[in-house]
Amino acid sequence: MNGAIGTTRWAIAEGYIPGSSTGEDRRFVSHETVCLLNAGDREAHVTLTVFFADREPVGPYRVTVPARRTLHVRFNDLTDPQPVPTDTDFASLIESDVPIVAQHTRLDSRQEALALLSTMAFPCP
Amino acid sequence: MNGAIGTTRWAIAEGYIPGSSTGEDRRFVSHETVCLLNAGDREAHVTLTVFFADREPVGPYRVTVPARRTLHVRFNDLTDPQPVPTDTDFASLIESDVPIVAQHTRLDSRQEALALLSTMAFPCP
Amino acid sequence: MNGAIGTTRWAIAEGYIPGSSTGEDRRFVSHETVCLLNAGDREAHVTLTVFFADREPVGPYRVTVPARRTLHVRFNDLTDPQPVPTDTDFASLIESDVPIVAQHTRLDSRQEALALLSTMAFPCP
Amino acid sequence: MNGAIGTTRWAIAEGYIPGSSTGEDRRFVSHETVCLLNAGDREAHVTLTVFFADREPVGPYRVTVPARRTLHVRFNDLTDPQPVPTDTDFASLIESDVPIVAQHTRLDSRQEALALLSTMAFPCP
Repeated sequence: MNGAIGTTRWAIAEGYIPGSSTGEDRRFVSHETVCLLNAGDREAHVTLTVFFADREPVGPYRVTVPARRTLHVRFNDLTDPQPVPTDTDFASLIESDVPIVAQHTRLDSRQEALALLSTMAFPCP
Repeated sequence: MNGAIGTTRWAIAEGYIPGSSTGEDRRFVSHETVCLLNAGDREAHVTLTVFFADREPVGPYRVTVPARRTLHVRFNDLTDPQPVPTDTDFASLIESDVPIVAQHTRLDSRQEALALLSTMAFPCP
Repeated sequence: MNGAIGTTRWAIAEGYIPGSSTGEDRRFVSHETVCLLNAGDREAHVTLTVFFADREPVGPYRVTVPARRTLHVRFNDLTDPQPVPTDTDFASLIESDVPIVAQHTRLDSRQEALALLSTMAFPCP
Repeated sequence: MNGAIGTTRWAIAEGYIPGSSTGEDRRFVSHETVCLLNAGDREAHVTLTVFFADREPVGPYRVTVPARRTLHVRFNDLTDPQPVPTDTDFASLIESDVPIVAQHTRLDSRQEALALLSTMAFPCP
């Protein structure tokens, strides 16, 4: 038993990077995040695929979560194969070679006070 | 294997379209949304049924999610068979002919700063 | 098949009625809600039990959800067997004689702009 | 049957204690919480393990939830074996010797109006 928990495929049907922010501080820049927890003893190689309303999916985006670590990935920061557009509806699929846990969070600071949302991603059977 | 993920029936017990908004910009108009992800290779034909506190359910509302696409449906935009009333408690049932993933999100801009909530819908066995 | 969906027992570990509000309008009064969806053809008889940090559970609170209806129950409105205190941590258990779906939502208007949270309740096996 | 509900292992992939607050009142201090419900008749001995992006996990933090009680644990309040740093991404694993239900909530009051998020934790199989 290597401590791994969760599952290897997760989906998030909601996705949206607000196109503006109040302030420049990275903490308060509007962002869309998928938080990944790899509780196990083996490094997780994770691919993200981004789905849109009107074009083919883009990906894979590749991130690595070391053993016994968490990685909070901002969709804003993804660049390869291409940046994720702002002010655009999307969805995402997260696939890993070892079990992980995935959670979706947004911080929206377009207006004078920030707003937050979060939900566990959907663990795909 | 055609890439389909999720399940064919989802429920959202919460539903409420705030009756006012700060600003006219569509991005900031208060809205209640169900986000649908169809990761598979076959078009999804989806019906929404809306439940109320004091009258019979209304529906089906019909939407189509093309293969490998996401569709973020605003309840505000539904018109056939009838608009969904604002300032009214409702709930919804989402049924699809192929597996999809469904997530519920609200943006409330009635006051001077927006508020957000989101949760995965409940995957009905 | 009578259209019933969901399960007969749900839990919400978070519970808190903010002790103040901005404004008197019922829509904007801070509230803690459990939204119930009864999609089936039989009336649902639901009991709520409220758990606290430092005293025995209180209940059952009884509500009825008619067939094919939703009921958004504000904990603020419960009075029998006793009101739910504000500014107090609690949790709740929802039990029904027929399958239902339960979702937890809070509107917090203590400050000048409202805040929202929501999550599906936990479907107890 | 002793009334126990839920499961013995839960994960939360998101974790972040905002580093500042508007006001000193404990109710409005920015906080990250895991809400635990022990609906059963036996005391729950719970351990929390906190995971980071760039260092080994810290724990166990130990809390006890009496029979038929809820405990809303603020990560801000944990001190043994060490405080949880603010403005730092983390994740957490919750393990109990009897079934419980776990839910994740944040109150962020860094800006002039508070923001909230909540989601059920992930019940690990």
